[in-house]
Amino acid sequence: MAQFDVIELIEDTKQGNALDAERVTGFVTAFMAGEVTEAQASAWMMAVCLQGISDDAASALTAAMVESGKLVDLSELDHTADKHSTGGVGDKVSLAACPLAAAAGSIVAKMSGRGLGHTGGTVDKLESIPGFRTDLSAKDFRAQAQRVGLVIAAQSHDLSPVDKRLYALRHDTATVDSPPLIAASVMSKKLAAGASAIVLDVKCGRGAFMQSPEEADHLARLMCHIGESQGRAMAAAITPMDQPLGRAVGHALEVTEAVEVLRGEGPPDVAELALQIATSMVLLSGAAPSLDDARARVEKARSSGSALDKLAEMVRAQGGDRRVIDDPARLPSARSIDVLRSPTSGRITWLDALRIAEVVESLGGSRRGRKAIDHSVGVRLLRKQGEDVSPGDPIVEIHASDPSSLDDAKTRIGRAMRVGDPAAPDPTQFEIRWIT
Amino acid sequence: MAQFDVIELIEDTKQGNALDAERVTGFVTAFMAGEVTEAQASAWMMAVCLQGISDDAASALTAAMVESGKLVDLSELDHTADKHSTGGVGDKVSLAACPLAAAAGSIVAKMSGRGLGHTGGTVDKLESIPGFRTDLSAKDFRAQAQRVGLVIAAQSHDLSPVDKRLYALRHDTATVDSPPLIAASVMSKKLAAGASAIVLDVKCGRGAFMQSPEEADHLARLMCHIGESQGRAMAAAITPMDQPLGRAVGHALEVTEAVEVLRGEGPPDVAELALQIATSMVLLSGAAPSLDDARARVEKARSSGSALDKLAEMVRAQGGDRRVIDDPARLPSARSIDVLRSPTSGRITWLDALRIAEVVESLGGSRRGRKAIDHSVGVRLLRKQGEDVSPGDPIVEIHASDPSSLDDAKTRIGRAMRVGDPAAPDPTQFEIRWIT
Repeated sequence: MAQFDVIELIEDTKQGNALDAERVTGFVTAFMAGEVTEAQASAWMMAVCLQGISDDAASALTAAMVESGKLVDLSELDHTADKHSTGGVGDKVSLAACPLAAAAGSIVAKMSGRGLGHTGGTVDKLESIPGFRTDLSAKDFRAQAQRVGLVIAAQSHDLSPVDKRLYALRHDTATVDSPPLIAASVMSKKLAAGASAIVLDVKCGRGAFMQSPEEADHLARLMCHIGESQGRAMAAAITPMDQPLGRAVGHALEVTEAVEVLRGEGPPDVAELALQIATSMVLLSGAAPSLDDARARVEKARSSGSALDKLAEMVRAQGGDRRVIDDPARLPSARSIDVLRSPTSGRITWLDALRIAEVVESLGGSRRGRKAIDHSVGVRLLRKQGEDVSPGDPIVEIHASDPSSLDDAKTRIGRAMRVGDPAAPDPTQFEIRWIT
Repeated sequence: MAQFDVIELIEDTKQGNALDAERVTGFVTAFMAGEVTEAQASAWMMAVCLQGISDDAASALTAAMVESGKLVDLSELDHTADKHSTGGVGDKVSLAACPLAAAAGSIVAKMSGRGLGHTGGTVDKLESIPGFRTDLSAKDFRAQAQRVGLVIAAQSHDLSPVDKRLYALRHDTATVDSPPLIAASVMSKKLAAGASAIVLDVKCGRGAFMQSPEEADHLARLMCHIGESQGRAMAAAITPMDQPLGRAVGHALEVTEAVEVLRGEGPPDVAELALQIATSMVLLSGAAPSLDDARARVEKARSSGSALDKLAEMVRAQGGDRRVIDDPARLPSARSIDVLRSPTSGRITWLDALRIAEVVESLGGSRRGRKAIDHSVGVRLLRKQGEDVSPGDPIVEIHASDPSSLDDAKTRIGRAMRVGDPAAPDPTQFEIRWIT
């Protein structure tokens, strides 16, 4: 290969010129070899933020990032599936969809991130289950996928190590919010984790990284393109994230809500999204011949209780106390529970996911500025956008470890909600849009 | 001052938001203190390249860069003037204009760069004079300005030290060609060097960094704005750089041509530009009450020989052999001189400055890929664009140290020139446009 010229690559990116796969690969290789400085990588990423790169260049970047590390080899397992959410508030979908898909015939092998910014992370939520281990070796990860058919573990550092370094730079250099860089970061880890089918849940709205449907669509299509160009079966759902998903926000509270969904209960938005995501995982992984058949299997996994059993089996396999699945009251619970009541009557016209996330953060439910997450804290939204309230109605249940934090939480919740004219049209439609 | 947040600065620059002076100053201060990483500085500069910053933000950046180092205090000297060229091929204007302005009443105190890219540097040219020293201390620089009224020295490293670090990063990260970054780099050094009047020569064309009149105008106005906002008298000439300036390209050959101009001879483009630049220096530094008066003084400095004497005085003050001024044949001369003759008849319709610079570079007249510059080599353009040739006419004189390099030089010169229809309209107008 010709000597890689990073200055020329940066210049061409700055000019908006096309980049071929070889040069993008050259960048990753040279960066890992220490031949491209962090200054050069940062200038290049800023040029990518402002000028964009083609979908094929983003695919090449992702493939090179995958090549930079180890891969989990799941190729001898059938019907392997993974899912990824771009991050939302109250997003416990993985905790329900993965057991559903596993019980319906897929082998679900998912590596998951920690909480990022205001959004919670699936492994953090699972760690609210006493004893649950998320730090599996790649070998144990694969073995459990084969034996149990369901494993959810923390991201292994061996996979896409270049992502870890580029991500740290992106954070320091204000180059986080670039679709090709986001897509390459996410997809390099998903591809390295080995599943043959990958279902994406791209959140869109005030509580999401993507604020507009156009941005969400673009990111979803780009990630699907990258996965498909690497031989994976891909699908993406675009789902609303203006208000929180479901009613629970907070680690243990969200595990409880996911268990409710698997019991045939739970909020309809979480349930329907989990069913659709699981259906797509089953279909794309080849565990069912048609969409209708996949959906039927997933629904049966829910109604029969086999998905709940599968979750319990995973919890036990990863060292957790499986009794919490039958009795979620065994999860960490907050010392102080208080209720915010409506001072007025009307319809809730606005419920801001980001602000609700900040309430939970202020109660201790985040890693930001803290040593450890308090898994017990959070809120339960007894009323959501589009629902009516009368004076004195309980609208939010607040779970706090420190009773002195309740007043501040109530003030913050007040700022996250608006109660308006009860005749106002209900703006709330939980619409799931699929891109395949 | 509030804690400076570099990530926020980068993000705002990326978004194209306005930056106030305090934040831009904060960037420079924090970068020099090691609190902003090279990665962050590079990402910020790439954002500046692609989104631009306001003229006032560029002024603030420049002022902060000046503050980062020492300043030459010329405030007790009257009529101090400096000039700067953005760099061209065959550009020996400083060697003529500075003595002209000094002999006409200004105190000319100029720090100058080395050759950059394909363009030669004034201090490199002066060093073709045997014994000439360009590495003056700031103290000696000021003392000679006071005593002789004329000093041209190499850039002191104490002035705008942040520019040295940012420039190295810009080179490595393809962020060189941004008007606010170019303007801040140039003007921070000019402001620190202390003169009260600064005249700019912004080159425009195939052999210049600025390719279009619009780009050149923008850069010129921006540099004037920066200088004026720091209390300096400013003017800028936009001058053509499609073909080389004058007939000589190469270090010693250019010194000779500048001496010819001061003797009342020399090519008319170099002479007129040197006269106009010197006139502007004299006027802006307050050494003459009007433009007409300034021009008359400068012309007298040329016709009387006082400007030539001033150059000789500077050469002696800086340790050089002043006899070269009376007898330029004492300058280093090339061993092999050959002539390229026209194979055809017609009019020269195209003479490419950049390609001619590359010829001189290939003969050894550049630092690129070499330990030292060969001051003796170069070309003399016996015919230029718009001039007619007949078969056998000498068109270029080639000065080489190594006779074996002559053939390659001839081939390259052939590619730098086109001879066309003698009835073709002469495209060559040496038009000097002033921005004040």
